[in-house]
Amino acid sequence: MTFYTRLKRLLVGKPIHTKHAHHERLPWYFALAVFASDALSSVAYAPEEIMRVLSHASNGYLYLTVPIAIGIATLLVIVVSSYYQTIRAYPQGGGSYRVASDNLGSIAGRLAGASLLIGYVLTVAVSISSGVLAIVSMVPAAKPYVIELGVGAVAFVGLMNLRGAKESGALFSVPTYSFILLMFGLIVSAGVKFTQGYEVPAYAAIAPTNLAQTAVLILVMQAFSSGCAALTGVEAIADGVQAFKPPEDKNANFTLIVMAAILGTMFVGLSFFASRYHIVPMPLEAENFRTVVAQIAAVVFGDGALYVMVQIATALILILAANTAFADFPRLSSFIARDGFLPRQLASQGDRLVFQNGIILLSFLAIVLIIAFKGDTHMLIPLYAAGVFISFTLSQGGMFVKLKRERKYLPMFFSGLGCFTTFVVSLIVIIQKFTLGAWIVLVALAVLMAVFWGIRRHYNYLRKELALNESDTLHPTKTTVLLLVPRLHKGILQAISYADSMTKDVRAIHVTLDPKGTDQIKREWTAFGIDFPLVILESPYRSLIEPITDYIDQALAEDPDQMITVIVPQAVPKRWWQGLLHNNVAVGLKLALASRKNVVVTNVRYFLK
Amino acid sequence: MTFYTRLKRLLVGKPIHTKHAHHERLPWYFALAVFASDALSSVAYAPEEIMRVLSHASNGYLYLTVPIAIGIATLLVIVVSSYYQTIRAYPQGGGSYRVASDNLGSIAGRLAGASLLIGYVLTVAVSISSGVLAIVSMVPAAKPYVIELGVGAVAFVGLMNLRGAKESGALFSVPTYSFILLMFGLIVSAGVKFTQGYEVPAYAAIAPTNLAQTAVLILVMQAFSSGCAALTGVEAIADGVQAFKPPEDKNANFTLIVMAAILGTMFVGLSFFASRYHIVPMPLEAENFRTVVAQIAAVVFGDGALYVMVQIATALILILAANTAFADFPRLSSFIARDGFLPRQLASQGDRLVFQNGIILLSFLAIVLIIAFKGDTHMLIPLYAAGVFISFTLSQGGMFVKLKRERKYLPMFFSGLGCFTTFVVSLIVIIQKFTLGAWIVLVALAVLMAVFWGIRRHYNYLRKELALNESDTLHPTKTTVLLLVPRLHKGILQAISYADSMTKDVRAIHVTLDPKGTDQIKREWTAFGIDFPLVILESPYRSLIEPITDYIDQALAEDPDQMITVIVPQAVPKRWWQGLLHNNVAVGLKLALASRKNVVVTNVRYFLK
Repeated sequence: MTFYTRLKRLLVGKPIHTKHAHHERLPWYFALAVFASDALSSVAYAPEEIMRVLSHASNGYLYLTVPIAIGIATLLVIVVSSYYQTIRAYPQGGGSYRVASDNLGSIAGRLAGASLLIGYVLTVAVSISSGVLAIVSMVPAAKPYVIELGVGAVAFVGLMNLRGAKESGALFSVPTYSFILLMFGLIVSAGVKFTQGYEVPAYAAIAPTNLAQTAVLILVMQAFSSGCAALTGVEAIADGVQAFKPPEDKNANFTLIVMAAILGTMFVGLSFFASRYHIVPMPLEAENFRTVVAQIAAVVFGDGALYVMVQIATALILILAANTAFADFPRLSSFIARDGFLPRQLASQGDRLVFQNGIILLSFLAIVLIIAFKGDTHMLIPLYAAGVFISFTLSQGGMFVKLKRERKYLPMFFSGLGCFTTFVVSLIVIIQKFTLGAWIVLVALAVLMAVFWGIRRHYNYLRKELALNESDTLHPTKTTVLLLVPRLHKGILQAISYADSMTKDVRAIHVTLDPKGTDQIKREWTAFGIDFPLVILESPYRSLIEPITDYIDQALAEDPDQMITVIVPQAVPKRWWQGLLHNNVAVGLKLALASRKNVVVTNVRYFLK
Repeated sequence: MTFYTRLKRLLVGKPIHTKHAHHERLPWYFALAVFASDALSSVAYAPEEIMRVLSHASNGYLYLTVPIAIGIATLLVIVVSSYYQTIRAYPQGGGSYRVASDNLGSIAGRLAGASLLIGYVLTVAVSISSGVLAIVSMVPAAKPYVIELGVGAVAFVGLMNLRGAKESGALFSVPTYSFILLMFGLIVSAGVKFTQGYEVPAYAAIAPTNLAQTAVLILVMQAFSSGCAALTGVEAIADGVQAFKPPEDKNANFTLIVMAAILGTMFVGLSFFASRYHIVPMPLEAENFRTVVAQIAAVVFGDGALYVMVQIATALILILAANTAFADFPRLSSFIARDGFLPRQLASQGDRLVFQNGIILLSFLAIVLIIAFKGDTHMLIPLYAAGVFISFTLSQGGMFVKLKRERKYLPMFFSGLGCFTTFVVSLIVIIQKFTLGAWIVLVALAVLMAVFWGIRRHYNYLRKELALNESDTLHPTKTTVLLLVPRLHKGILQAISYADSMTKDVRAIHVTLDPKGTDQIKREWTAFGIDFPLVILESPYRSLIEPITDYIDQALAEDPDQMITVIVPQAVPKRWWQGLLHNNVAVGLKLALASRKNVVVTNVRYFLK
């Protein structure tokens, strides 16, 4: 085994046989843990995003948090009603890419696929960064290392996925249900504490709330746009219907509703108490930085064991959310690659039965984002919400068209409402957050669409170009072998007999810089009894390459139908640095011959002990 | 012509025929310009180095500049007397490497060679950086760009040398003689101004001069060590005797004496007036930074045209000094490479008749130094002086041994004196500057010596290993050809007939991930009438490489004497990015087969239009 193989085995494990491919079927309570972690975990950052926008204007506007949260919960109900229809219509799994492609055509499908791919990259970056912030809220000493921690966590989750860790329902249940339990505990305790007459401290140094009415409206829309991040991940259940125990669609829909109920309650509940307890979001730079959820927990639970548990559960569910994207991105990109819009390599499964190229690509992109944004999630949220709502709109638009065609009018109404609402929200998000980064999503979408188009065009061209016609036949090939020789030594003996075995027309080629020395070489050659001629090429310009290319061009000009095989004997030293001590003609020669047809360059290696 | 060829032609010009190799013979006044620029240019920084050390203790010690300068001038006389003997004994050119190798043995020769190589790299870095400082003294706005200017200048001089610019005496004379003239003008004018009663301003805020006597002695030795940088480049004339018009040795020695006289006068003169005019060296960070020479020029000439001329001439002669190293380093490394102590590539002349690899290596190393030391020459001077004096000592030691053997006692005395003096100075420099960087030179020397040894050992081993014995004969080779095929398409037709032409035992190999699809491929294969078998390899672990390597291992185990030729058809797309859309099996296969003997991997390419 080479060093590379050993390292790979150590990191990702032994190859897995194709026959071991299987899909675990999950009962709804495990499926909730697997598919809802992305959506549920968004309560760790979405309320904070709303409050960040409001408090930026003035803490006096923070009371708007609750109505906005209720608005977003309403939006959640609409989106969920729409996905309910999707699950019924696509019990084999209704990802946006498929639904939009089937019903709105290939371009809409690709647009949905592109926004989903972008969304998955952002899911990983945002979830992991938020998870790191939960850790930092607990261990302030870790704050200078948010980037390193984020990058490390992405690499870890990526590696786990390269190992091909199955989405184990039982394993995933622990953090997901711990998180749900702790959040509900937090909300209930917050309520109890409040009714027991806890005196909430006043906002410190409040700025005046003197905005004009239109400005307040814009503020609300801005905050609403930010809060829409709470809806990311809602589509996961519809994507994965096939992982449910039969009846798949019924179980999936039940889980969808349970998930929506939990998510809505937690989201509104946390927003409510954050507002009631006069909590103000902190900038990451602040001393004693804590997330909003951590601040609520600190007020309600104090700094003890429960606080620590809340932070750990938050961090874990956020890492699970990233893990979901690691399951979805490679799968979606393999679909798109199979349709010919992404490089084929993304569609091939590696020896651990995973789409390893997709996993590596996703890790790379998420790490780039975390480094570029210095681990500060907050900056990524506008991008995130924009991408997700575009794919919502396309998916539900597709459902609307499908249901209309099928004349199912009540479901059609829900899908239409979902499509319309998410379209309006998309517009609000993009307009409100345009200068804050939503434009990047539009640019990225355009670039991805262009990439899809270019790749498909190349593959189409390939198929046409390489298709065999009636008229195509095999032409017998005549090949002339040119064996490049330095002076005669033991290392090239194998190459000589190899060349001799290949064809009748073999010529040894020796390039000389010093014509005086060639007699000696010729004498050695003849003395050894080699039965093909030695051609001496003089190199007045001291290049070892050009005399050979000139000779080849001349031979090809004489007989354009032949193939020229250039055999270059090559020493393989034991240690890498010894390679630097040998002229490596083959590399230069290959470069020089790169554009010449009918030329084959072959290395015959000899091993130095 | 490829893009690379075009670019290369544009930058370095057309190839030059070997017959155009020639050596210009120079009259002494042109030879002075060519060979003395390195030594003479050192007056631009050496006095400053002395004053820097002294003023660091207190400006009150700056009066010691003049006695130290006189000490160094005396050292110059001793070294020159010794080199006078070298030129007489080695009219064919007496570089330290040759003199030490001939008379003290190979190890001493290599040590001299190593310290010279290090010295040349430092010459380029120090001279170019000093030249940039001369420019900055004239154009303060350029100060933030010292690193960029330095790197750019090295790249420019390197490129000129890659073009193979001959050391043109006439061209070099202009800056060298301008510099000499301007320096003498400056010294004379400084004297005139002084006698005319110019009132020198007192040192500002002088620190007390209360060091103990031993501390002052150490201070003087430190300053002396720094000032020894003035002697760098003195050996250049002895290296290049063959470039002089006959009688070469007489002309060379005359030039050596003229050079020493000019250098000594300029050095002592500038040091004298720098001290008399109470000039204090400035740190590079200072606002209105000016070198010591620039400060003298500003006081004497004012800020007008003459000042600008001094700065330009200084910058130009420093660039010429770097150019000298660009002539010497590649030549010396080609000698050492021919002796088998450096990679052969350093001994081969490129198409412009220059040792291009040496030029590129030197440029690279000098640029690394300039960047690492942020363009601040001052930090490099201790390294510089240490390296140069070690090679002086070895060269003169060699001369001493030679002259002793030849019983030429008077010359022997001068060489002995030179050897002893430079040995003592080497010790002083290394001890005084040890912690300031001289240790780096010792480490670099040790590393280079180890590299020399390792390289020579490898080449020796190669020679023995590859030598033909009586018993070596050619064994006829049987080769089995394995042609890797995807499904049948137009691109691989040529590869099929090529494989067919090579040998009788050809097998097409198709690796399949999905055994169900193979019938179709087999049918196409048979239908097309190909007369060798198609072997289907299943890949339960989805690797395209492993089934092939396993098959090869099995074939080799069955018949260890045969060669296996693996032919991989490879698409050559028109644009580079299209290459990303194709599986590149050949690269992975070559890596996987890297350690297997008797295996040849061949690409047969097909071109996509």
